[in-house]
Amino acid sequence: MLPAPSAITGDLLIGFDTVRTDATFTATDPATGLPLPGLFSCAAAGHVQRAAALAARAFDPYRLRPVADRAAFLEAIADTIAALGDVLTDRACAETGLPRARIVGETARTTGQLRLFADLVRAGLDALPRLDGARPDRRPLPRADLRQGHVGLGPVAVFGAGNFPLAFSVAGGDTASALAAGCPVVARAHPAHPGTGELVGRAILHAARQCDMPEGVFSLLGGPDHAPGAQLVADPHIAAVGFTGSRAGGLALMRLAAARPVPIPVFAEMSSINPVYLLPGALANGAAEIAQGFAASLTAGSGQFCTNPGLLVAVEGPDLEAFVATAAARLAESPGAPMLTAGIHRAFDAGVRRLADTPGVSLLARGPHNDGPNRCRAALFRTDAQTFAAHPHLAEEVFGAVSLLVACPDMAAMQALTERLEGQLTATLWLAEDDLPAARALMPVLERKAGRILANGWPTGVEVCPAMVHGGPFPATSDGRSTSVGTGAIERFLRPVCYQDLPRALLPERLRDDAPSGRPCLRDGALVPA
Amino acid sequence: MLPAPSAITGDLLIGFDTVRTDATFTATDPATGLPLPGLFSCAAAGHVQRAAALAARAFDPYRLRPVADRAAFLEAIADTIAALGDVLTDRACAETGLPRARIVGETARTTGQLRLFADLVRAGLDALPRLDGARPDRRPLPRADLRQGHVGLGPVAVFGAGNFPLAFSVAGGDTASALAAGCPVVARAHPAHPGTGELVGRAILHAARQCDMPEGVFSLLGGPDHAPGAQLVADPHIAAVGFTGSRAGGLALMRLAAARPVPIPVFAEMSSINPVYLLPGALANGAAEIAQGFAASLTAGSGQFCTNPGLLVAVEGPDLEAFVATAAARLAESPGAPMLTAGIHRAFDAGVRRLADTPGVSLLARGPHNDGPNRCRAALFRTDAQTFAAHPHLAEEVFGAVSLLVACPDMAAMQALTERLEGQLTATLWLAEDDLPAARALMPVLERKAGRILANGWPTGVEVCPAMVHGGPFPATSDGRSTSVGTGAIERFLRPVCYQDLPRALLPERLRDDAPSGRPCLRDGALVPA
Repeated sequence: MLPAPSAITGDLLIGFDTVRTDATFTATDPATGLPLPGLFSCAAAGHVQRAAALAARAFDPYRLRPVADRAAFLEAIADTIAALGDVLTDRACAETGLPRARIVGETARTTGQLRLFADLVRAGLDALPRLDGARPDRRPLPRADLRQGHVGLGPVAVFGAGNFPLAFSVAGGDTASALAAGCPVVARAHPAHPGTGELVGRAILHAARQCDMPEGVFSLLGGPDHAPGAQLVADPHIAAVGFTGSRAGGLALMRLAAARPVPIPVFAEMSSINPVYLLPGALANGAAEIAQGFAASLTAGSGQFCTNPGLLVAVEGPDLEAFVATAAARLAESPGAPMLTAGIHRAFDAGVRRLADTPGVSLLARGPHNDGPNRCRAALFRTDAQTFAAHPHLAEEVFGAVSLLVACPDMAAMQALTERLEGQLTATLWLAEDDLPAARALMPVLERKAGRILANGWPTGVEVCPAMVHGGPFPATSDGRSTSVGTGAIERFLRPVCYQDLPRALLPERLRDDAPSGRPCLRDGALVPA
Repeated sequence: MLPAPSAITGDLLIGFDTVRTDATFTATDPATGLPLPGLFSCAAAGHVQRAAALAARAFDPYRLRPVADRAAFLEAIADTIAALGDVLTDRACAETGLPRARIVGETARTTGQLRLFADLVRAGLDALPRLDGARPDRRPLPRADLRQGHVGLGPVAVFGAGNFPLAFSVAGGDTASALAAGCPVVARAHPAHPGTGELVGRAILHAARQCDMPEGVFSLLGGPDHAPGAQLVADPHIAAVGFTGSRAGGLALMRLAAARPVPIPVFAEMSSINPVYLLPGALANGAAEIAQGFAASLTAGSGQFCTNPGLLVAVEGPDLEAFVATAAARLAESPGAPMLTAGIHRAFDAGVRRLADTPGVSLLARGPHNDGPNRCRAALFRTDAQTFAAHPHLAEEVFGAVSLLVACPDMAAMQALTERLEGQLTATLWLAEDDLPAARALMPVLERKAGRILANGWPTGVEVCPAMVHGGPFPATSDGRSTSVGTGAIERFLRPVCYQDLPRALLPERLRDDAPSGRPCLRDGALVPA
């Protein structure tokens, strides 16, 4: 086995080639505001075309490799990333300002995700084959032999997220699920952490060579501008897009994809304020304890999570005031960590100012001043249901550790507010036994609005498992029928193909009568487990 | 039980109300060109709004009814349609010019589809719940209890197809799968068969009353213009669109849906030429027999099928000439039946003329003259691979009984032609044992291009079963990940929702620990059958 490549050269990684451009950019340490070592190449139109064309050429050879090879490739990527150790951790910490423990944990999550998809495809649980036997004697017409398998969509463009430099980035969930589905990936490294992206990209290519995968199965493009990403989405070889980022960015990609001569699906995870309902019984039982949990969830990672609790909804009363007192105290003493980039910090401050400047909105707490650059000063605001309804911008995401409490006169107002919310990744109910009737009334609305509904917990922290839904109706995502976390993420990149009366020699191995026993499937409409 | 309503009044059916407008239109018998009895109301903007708003109001009450009620509703619709008997058959024959046996068969297919979806939801096989148990002792963090269920998208707009007045129309596959998914339906009756649409719409509403379903679970809008349909797709209450029709129509709906403030998915089945590969061994074994099957498939229903074999691909040689001789003889004596509408007939003739006028394309056969109106004169053209590549319009669908034979110099030319094809509903291989190597080389390309691949059969005739894929890459459909025929059609209208640590009382019944045994699911990542 070759040693894992741990040097950062700043090159684009196009197929098995490295490419250096004259134009370059640098990364910045958000904790200091100072540039980091490394000059990173900027992809131009020709590089995008080349990467996409190589991916298209790699598609058949890659997807037609036995499933065991695909699984071994995913595991080799995980092994190579894990072997990077401190080189990766140091660079990711420097480029993001995130604490070391978070980066170590996120690396484990990233390699765990890759291994989970390896297990999934090996177990044949990526998508169930459907086998409907021939009925030659059926009247008036015989029935053919019909077998449904699944084929990858084709090359997938993956846009790394700014807030998860590993788990939602170059080898994150989108890449892992696309590769598991048999789709080559052209990734765009997030410009805020190009060195992290390159290390991970080189790890993928190292694994590709080690596993004898075709050139083009993976390429990595970088650059500070939007243009190469837009070209990538418009490239005729690209068949689908995975994106985690801002609403504006996701909408731009959706428009580009819909305007193509051949429109393609975009799976964009964009924008959510993740309402948390503090029901009266729960507040009566433990307002202070809930407030502590809230402050911890809001400020973790400077609130730079898609599932950050950006909206609290509660009924007015003394228990709510007790919650407010504890939450405000906690937030006022919450140390301000650096945000991911200066741009994100500016947008956060602007969003906080806009909340503060809205008539009828009052500031309950603000984190302490901190002289370092890009520090996130957590903020909690309060308003009433009428003001919330009158100012639609109050329901828009402000990325970072800020939340708005809407104090409602009664449950009816809470219900009405909920009905007007946009689509969300999550909705959370804090409830006690006597809150069940109120919660039951909210449930149908929450089911229509959110991808995940929690009780007595916090939405930050997204488990990677079969049942997870990290998705939700627009604008939480561009396609509420999908999830970008958990094994269900693979379904985004697969399409069904039906084989009618095909001779054995032309059927995919998995659909043959003599396929390895233990293959789970749907046979004549009935589930057959492994 | 109330008697099934069998009178045609021409009213719009909005919720449980009937609405008569001043503006009206009539239907035409395409076999005679003469108007049929009945003045049909034209939906205006207010009617569209009212139907969509009622559907939105009906969504929660409908989807939250027990699954057994939903299944009973689907079966009641099937029963009511079946009870219409000759009233429905007579009207559908008159409005479409299709033969009686076809309409009787299509009615059985329609009621069979409704019953199939009833069985599917009753068996819990619409979408598998995923249950991941809590792991309170896990380190470093405990795992929550996570359960994934599915929720309908919301009200679905269904556009009835012109070529299937029953099976792809008001109570066709889109409506059946949407209702099965728990989604109310606002259907637009096809303007060419408004009486058929009204009879079926009244049958659905009859079943809705009988099963005590909420008002708005179904509405039927009619009219000769595109405007109400466009308003329906733009209406904020509509959550998804099902459409079967022309490429221009499907693209228009896709654009409207993508331009909404909240974009919604469109499942449009649009355009396909369904290439048929006549491989050398198969032609050597039985060119005449294959030619007879081809002529029958091409001319059935005047070729007005999405899966009509519009493209033949073969290698030049004497066996191909034998095929041509028989096919041409058959088509030259094929009686011309009336097409569905005068507009379709005009478009067919124009398409045939355009083929005839293309340099390098020669006419092999044309059906006999017929004095009746709107008669389809079948046509078979021939060209070579170079001409086919040079004129992209030769690869565009001409709706009706016309096909183009592309005679290739060798298998390499056939392969190259295939690589350039657009997305298709089907691709068919006629092959013998010695064709397997050639077929094996084509398979990867066909898997990328088509939703269904057949051997030694004809693509017309689409089985309704779990393994069927009636879909395919763009422009065959707007979303190649979907099927509009078979049980998989329900997945278009469902989205996953994850329930984290919810108390039993708030969980959907199907996700509870004490759910009826026999519930199929994915438990901790392993399939558990019923």
